[in-house]
Amino acid sequence: MTITITAFERSPDGGRGLARDTRVRWALEEVGQPYVVRPVSFRAMKEPAHLARHPFGQIPTYEEGDLVLFETGAIIFHIAERHAGLLPDDANARARAITWMFAAVNTMEPPILELATAKLLESDRPWHDQRLPLVEDRVRNRLKQLSIRLGDADWLDGAFSAGDLMMASVLLRLKSSGMLGEYPNLAAYLARSETRPASVRAFAAQLADNTRKPLP
Amino acid sequence: MTITITAFERSPDGGRGLARDTRVRWALEEVGQPYVVRPVSFRAMKEPAHLARHPFGQIPTYEEGDLVLFETGAIIFHIAERHAGLLPDDANARARAITWMFAAVNTMEPPILELATAKLLESDRPWHDQRLPLVEDRVRNRLKQLSIRLGDADWLDGAFSAGDLMMASVLLRLKSSGMLGEYPNLAAYLARSETRPASVRAFAAQLADNTRKPLP
Repeated sequence: MTITITAFERSPDGGRGLARDTRVRWALEEVGQPYVVRPVSFRAMKEPAHLARHPFGQIPTYEEGDLVLFETGAIIFHIAERHAGLLPDDANARARAITWMFAAVNTMEPPILELATAKLLESDRPWHDQRLPLVEDRVRNRLKQLSIRLGDADWLDGAFSAGDLMMASVLLRLKSSGMLGEYPNLAAYLARSETRPASVRAFAAQLADNTRKPLP
Repeated sequence: MTITITAFERSPDGGRGLARDTRVRWALEEVGQPYVVRPVSFRAMKEPAHLARHPFGQIPTYEEGDLVLFETGAIIFHIAERHAGLLPDDANARARAITWMFAAVNTMEPPILELATAKLLESDRPWHDQRLPLVEDRVRNRLKQLSIRLGDADWLDGAFSAGDLMMASVLLRLKSSGMLGEYPNLAAYLARSETRPASVRAFAAQLADNTRKPLP
């Protein structure tokens, strides 16, 4: 059955991989599944046809026959359950990999999103300069804890898993902040993730989709 | 095998159910599994023994034989996978229920946590009064989208699932804000969730654990 995902018609970052469809492309590349991308304009994202697929009017969505999913965590878990390569066979190791998926989106990502919001949506507010260090310190608290847990391991729990894919995808948002440089093992972890062949292919595909010449 | 969860020795809300162990108790009650609670002090949460279980120094954790998990999403998914009552049998319906679990923690909860942070940690900051309405509006955007999707249904996707349990647990944080009253179907959804017998038992157990008389 064909897998179709939605992505921004034009990604706000020009295709540098911050849009969340990149995570899904990466997961599909890790398990060797082909996919089709349906680009969606910002206008179409708020229209009934897309809202039926994604109640929060965002991308990506995932369609496979009758199944329609949203939320990158759920989509990547669905892919990982059906194809080898993203979750270990051992039941306990599998449960721990799923734990890291949730830790990525529910413990690490909220302060990172708050930082992005502070920078993008509150940059012209009078409190911006004074408040930013507070928000950055909340992110640092989490990075420090994650850095201690990772230690000198390559991946969060033994072999690379969907938990690492999600965690690296979340840490990616901090790249431009320079903050990851304060935690060399996390910077190396992200670099290790980004240089996986599947990741390289996913980012290249995302960039290619965002740099196609417009139709004449 | 005995299931042991950790919880605050004294919950900051006095046992009203906002601490995250409530979600896990609720899930265990839904599937009829007994559990043991090990209370953890704020000091012990930052010590090596607890950090080995939970790298971010929080509660709850979940122990069952050799398995140690953290993150409520992962714990509840683990419970739901092993015991009937929280995930539908049909593969597509199951994937959609998991989608709502992720939507609860990664789409709904981040702005709700940001609101809690603004109220709790930034209440004495000069920008507090001016900034609060912005944060509230971000929460309202999500509530509105969720309200539209729920419509007049009882649950988010057919029968009650772990997705509803997570979503109701997240919405619970807004109860004191009065904001849910603006979306009557969401207020009714939360009330419907809270009056489930399993939920009532979980909240009662959490309250009882927090109102025990101190040892003489």
